[in-house]
Amino acid sequence: MPKPIHYADASAEVRAVFDDIKATRGVPDVNNFWKYLAHDPVTLARTWESVKQVMTPGALDARTKEMIYLAVSVTNGCEYCIASHGAAARKAGMSEAMFGELMAVVGMANETNRLANGYRVPVDAAFEW
Amino acid sequence: MPKPIHYADASAEVRAVFDDIKATRGVPDVNNFWKYLAHDPVTLARTWESVKQVMTPGALDARTKEMIYLAVSVTNGCEYCIASHGAAARKAGMSEAMFGELMAVVGMANETNRLANGYRVPVDAAFEW
Amino acid sequence: MPKPIHYADASAEVRAVFDDIKATRGVPDVNNFWKYLAHDPVTLARTWESVKQVMTPGALDARTKEMIYLAVSVTNGCEYCIASHGAAARKAGMSEAMFGELMAVVGMANETNRLANGYRVPVDAAFEW
Amino acid sequence: MPKPIHYADASAEVRAVFDDIKATRGVPDVNNFWKYLAHDPVTLARTWESVKQVMTPGALDARTKEMIYLAVSVTNGCEYCIASHGAAARKAGMSEAMFGELMAVVGMANETNRLANGYRVPVDAAFEW
Amino acid sequence: MPKPIHYADASAEVRAVFDDIKATRGVPDVNNFWKYLAHDPVTLARTWESVKQVMTPGALDARTKEMIYLAVSVTNGCEYCIASHGAAARKAGMSEAMFGELMAVVGMANETNRLANGYRVPVDAAFEW
Amino acid sequence: MPKPIHYADASAEVRAVFDDIKATRGVPDVNNFWKYLAHDPVTLARTWESVKQVMTPGALDARTKEMIYLAVSVTNGCEYCIASHGAAARKAGMSEAMFGELMAVVGMANETNRLANGYRVPVDAAFEW
Repeated sequence: MPKPIHYADASAEVRAVFDDIKATRGVPDVNNFWKYLAHDPVTLARTWESVKQVMTPGALDARTKEMIYLAVSVTNGCEYCIASHGAAARKAGMSEAMFGELMAVVGMANETNRLANGYRVPVDAAFEW
Repeated sequence: MPKPIHYADASAEVRAVFDDIKATRGVPDVNNFWKYLAHDPVTLARTWESVKQVMTPGALDARTKEMIYLAVSVTNGCEYCIASHGAAARKAGMSEAMFGELMAVVGMANETNRLANGYRVPVDAAFEW
Repeated sequence: MPKPIHYADASAEVRAVFDDIKATRGVPDVNNFWKYLAHDPVTLARTWESVKQVMTPGALDARTKEMIYLAVSVTNGCEYCIASHGAAARKAGMSEAMFGELMAVVGMANETNRLANGYRVPVDAAFEW
Repeated sequence: MPKPIHYADASAEVRAVFDDIKATRGVPDVNNFWKYLAHDPVTLARTWESVKQVMTPGALDARTKEMIYLAVSVTNGCEYCIASHGAAARKAGMSEAMFGELMAVVGMANETNRLANGYRVPVDAAFEW
Repeated sequence: MPKPIHYADASAEVRAVFDDIKATRGVPDVNNFWKYLAHDPVTLARTWESVKQVMTPGALDARTKEMIYLAVSVTNGCEYCIASHGAAARKAGMSEAMFGELMAVVGMANETNRLANGYRVPVDAAFEW
Repeated sequence: MPKPIHYADASAEVRAVFDDIKATRGVPDVNNFWKYLAHDPVTLARTWESVKQVMTPGALDARTKEMIYLAVSVTNGCEYCIASHGAAARKAGMSEAMFGELMAVVGMANETNRLANGYRVPVDAAFEW
């Protein structure tokens, strides 16, 4: 079973990614996700570059992006991601009231997705612009 | 296979829900989802009351709520819901640039959810506050 | 892309399975699922034997089994399976009122599954007997 | 991370819901799911009202409804829901033999859902009534 | 909650399956999956016969089959199956470099599956042969 | 609803990615997936660079990688991806016999993933190395 690779034991290639994560996020150490991905330095570097690009504020702000990330993770039932992106969303300004409303929307969407499936509802012409 | 129930053929109970949807949303007719749910007036009424409550702006604005709904629907692959909530999110102000960023986040979250699963990454103590 | 294999074009091995399906179900022809699986006679035979064993009434009656099959198919969004097992459940006695209640339960379960995920609710000791 | 809200620490609004759950189910305390949802009294009240309505025996009896709930939870891999609705289904009369058959159907449906997807089987005209 | 059934406590019917698993795999004891399935001897026997048939090398070798099994388990987030088939794939020759590449493909597929869903990309005529 | 962006109508930025896809794969035009992603040139470029890196043969050959991609897509029920990666896997050497065995493994894994969930099977100590 993979074990975490800590900074002290990491290759120069892995350390370079860890250093960039720490500098970008202003944190003293990277979280477990990156320590496990470090077993595959190519995937580690690509995933970090992708996450950095995708999560940078643009048309959507950081808080909205983290809340979308959390909504997907809750839908998929990924415990690690719920914990880590729940923390990240709160750090980016999600209040507990916002979290409650996010969860209500996620729950409702998962319910109505199945109602639409089960009743085999065809897409309205008005939505096919 | 269920068929849509149109206003002209609906019971008074169903019409009352259709009328409230039309008035609340300011639309001339309800979309197919509700016409199919009309086969079960109890579920129709409950689902509409729940959706109305959940989607009303509160700590989160309407656009953010619709984007979270869309992110869940994309993750689940519900074609009807992607079409209908994609339209609703755009109506609530989601620009094409925002849609592009939403899709990028949804894709990335689905990817890293599986990386966290497969590497069996344990939750960091820092996330267990 | 795989195409259906019809009885007239099938090998003796495939015909034997088709004959057993038709005799067991009392139908003049097998449905598309089996005509596509016929590309792999080993999987065709194993799947049919398994389905036959699993769906035979036992502690649960045929209608309940078909409704469980349908609930899973709706959750997974498998359109073919929703159509075929929706038909099978109705043939086994599922009324439209039962279908409506089944859909209500499936929707609610999909919603509360995500509420439990997102709030990271720990299992109660009382459920760990 | 959300923590459970116990009765002694709950607001009057939350206590009213807890009291109704306890009275309806005849239990001395609510299970963890409700104690976590209590962080959002609006979602707590709406979810309880919905669950109460949906799970009341109607065209389907309580045991069948709980088994459908369990089948969905197993498909989604929601550990909390598997534990809680497994207990509820047993309380409503699901024997171990019924549980075994339920699991066999759930497993088979998850398998054939993917066979139908992968072989891209089109819906039979006979299922499109 | 189901408990494992150990060899010493198993019926003759269950022992026969356990013996075949141990002989086929050359292991001193069966893993937990089979000890839990033993609560339902019919499902135990059918599942073992199916797994044995499906996982026997044929057009695909054992390592490739185990890696496909692992890819599905990671996608579904089944922790037990990730652990057991991760071990089985390694035993069948999957190197850590292969595991890293498998995970990269699984992550990418989960990402692009959602991009295709969300952009509602129609299947190219060239893929409909 | 997004529409495909064809080469003739594409920006220089998008054309550069399309040109690289065509050159790398030796095809006269890109498939629909890329024409839709072209609405977001940043995601288009990143996704193509990632796919190119991930799918290049390494410890795993191209055929195995495409089969893993297909297994994930079948599990998620992504029709576009099943069609496109089914074609890609066949182009990379997957025979129909291999496809049949792949589907059998995918079906079995989806079944046993749920059996493991539902019976709440704990991970064996032997798998925790």
